[in-house]
Amino acid sequence: MKIDGIERRTVWFENGELCLIDQPKLPHRFEIFRTRDYRVAAKAISTMIVRGAPAIGATGAYAMALAAIEGVNPEIAAREIQATRPTARDLFYGVERTLKCWKAGNDVLDEAENCAQEYIAASKKIGELGAALIKDGDKISTHCNAGWLATVDWGTAMAPVFMANRQGKKNFVFVDETRPRCQGSRLTAYELLNENIDHAVICDNSSGYYMKNGDIDLVIVGSDRIALNGDIANKIGTYSSAVVAKENNIPFYVAAPMATIDKNCSTGDEIPIEERNNLEVAGMFGIDINTGKETTIQIAPKKSPVKNPAFDVTPAKYISGIITEKGIFNPSDIRNLF
Amino acid sequence: MKIDGIERRTVWFENGELCLIDQPKLPHRFEIFRTRDYRVAAKAISTMIVRGAPAIGATGAYAMALAAIEGVNPEIAAREIQATRPTARDLFYGVERTLKCWKAGNDVLDEAENCAQEYIAASKKIGELGAALIKDGDKISTHCNAGWLATVDWGTAMAPVFMANRQGKKNFVFVDETRPRCQGSRLTAYELLNENIDHAVICDNSSGYYMKNGDIDLVIVGSDRIALNGDIANKIGTYSSAVVAKENNIPFYVAAPMATIDKNCSTGDEIPIEERNNLEVAGMFGIDINTGKETTIQIAPKKSPVKNPAFDVTPAKYISGIITEKGIFNPSDIRNLF
Repeated sequence: MKIDGIERRTVWFENGELCLIDQPKLPHRFEIFRTRDYRVAAKAISTMIVRGAPAIGATGAYAMALAAIEGVNPEIAAREIQATRPTARDLFYGVERTLKCWKAGNDVLDEAENCAQEYIAASKKIGELGAALIKDGDKISTHCNAGWLATVDWGTAMAPVFMANRQGKKNFVFVDETRPRCQGSRLTAYELLNENIDHAVICDNSSGYYMKNGDIDLVIVGSDRIALNGDIANKIGTYSSAVVAKENNIPFYVAAPMATIDKNCSTGDEIPIEERNNLEVAGMFGIDINTGKETTIQIAPKKSPVKNPAFDVTPAKYISGIITEKGIFNPSDIRNLF
Repeated sequence: MKIDGIERRTVWFENGELCLIDQPKLPHRFEIFRTRDYRVAAKAISTMIVRGAPAIGATGAYAMALAAIEGVNPEIAAREIQATRPTARDLFYGVERTLKCWKAGNDVLDEAENCAQEYIAASKKIGELGAALIKDGDKISTHCNAGWLATVDWGTAMAPVFMANRQGKKNFVFVDETRPRCQGSRLTAYELLNENIDHAVICDNSSGYYMKNGDIDLVIVGSDRIALNGDIANKIGTYSSAVVAKENNIPFYVAAPMATIDKNCSTGDEIPIEERNNLEVAGMFGIDINTGKETTIQIAPKKSPVKNPAFDVTPAKYISGIITEKGIFNPSDIRNLF
């Protein structure tokens, strides 16, 4: 996708370095994070310099390639990289396939690049298939960031929106800001500006207001892990959005590559939910409007306890369809794909 | 209620001045805002130095008393004060009753003080009646701030929680932070700390997660306006909370004084919804964690449009009961009270 007119990927490898768009710096500053050290790459996943299930899947694969170049023990590297974030299936997928290749004595960097290329192809196909669900003039709600910054390119939930736009459809996107880290406000809005797509940033708690008022035609979100019964884990708040959409008879779609499906996971109850740090909720980071400098502010009383689950599980019954590169499936059909 | 051990009201009159706890300064700094000028008092309502339906009801009444002392035209003063915020019924209630008294040639300040005292008595009674709904050990969800800072004293939604605590019940409160202005995170959490009640601040989009997990026994929220059919307007996000509560069979209560009921409003569709400024959503105010100074940060891209409805309407069918000083009513019984 294009950023300020230049064609970019979110995750790539050049000159012996893993390169990532430094996402906490967006939308105010565009910077590239580079490393040759697999441990630094792992840290970039846990601190969310890169985030989004497919993006961390590809980053995990490239981190394994760095570890192979560094000559460390494959199993140890795999364990360290997988320990960074517990919820997204893709991270395990990216590490597992490169570990297998490494142990078979094949080129790990080639395998990581294959993994990234497959993610790009899957995202583009999701865009093509999903665009058929979007009519000219539709108003779409999305949560968190599931555009190209959450993947290697194109996106998951937003790929159909970008594709529909390139097909000449005029749509409008209600962007949930997605507290606590505001990936909607910071990243999805940034992508939509770059693609010239009409949108508005809203607080998470106002999507229901627009759903009830008849202003939203469909919801599309990404996913971090899909269970065999069609339950899906995604950014905290997805569940509430799905419940309110169903109450208002609004179709609710999930878009994700096949790599997000966890064949070892029967239902959403088995998906581990990451708890992140207190300051994400008690405060907020951004750019001081007076000085232009990056900073973090405290909002809640310092003594107040905080709970910060990063994901929730949306049961299959709220989901109208799961858009993958292999087709759009009923959640109840996921198990039959294997 | 006590703040740092000292008994306080949110809105009061002393030495010829209207006094308000300066709420945007909380929880980091306690300051009292004072004025003798009714126009400054009106501005304090629109800029939310004071907020919460009953609190702005009482402030509107005192602002009329200031206008009477200043010797301006009663109708003009009433219009200016009522123009500050469109949604809360209480603001109109406070201004209408003092205007009537003024035009009858009676003491407007006395009437404003009566209005404030009646609000205190109503809040305390709401606390007593509502506390009976709360069992020892119950975990309660609340949205925005409907504690003493939203009223003159005690609160609406939180009055039953404070009363239950004084009765020796041990409860836990899930405090929705309540974007965009975070009155939950900043004010409700501050009240609960002062009352020594267990709680956690959560993002608005995670209350559904806890509801689904069986961690929430009941929801209590305040209201800015109640229609005769039992629909209620309250802070944006209340509707989604009510829908998800119903989906999980969790009782959903609304607490408000009788003054919040609008006898001229048949259904929630007639309630005007205030749209506030973009920066509330595109940014956030708080205390810089490095310098300790108050500041505002920008989160969203500066070019991204924003929508910022401050309230939503929750239809009567989602409401288990409306707690007033006259009793706990089924929403369908509201019309019969008049």
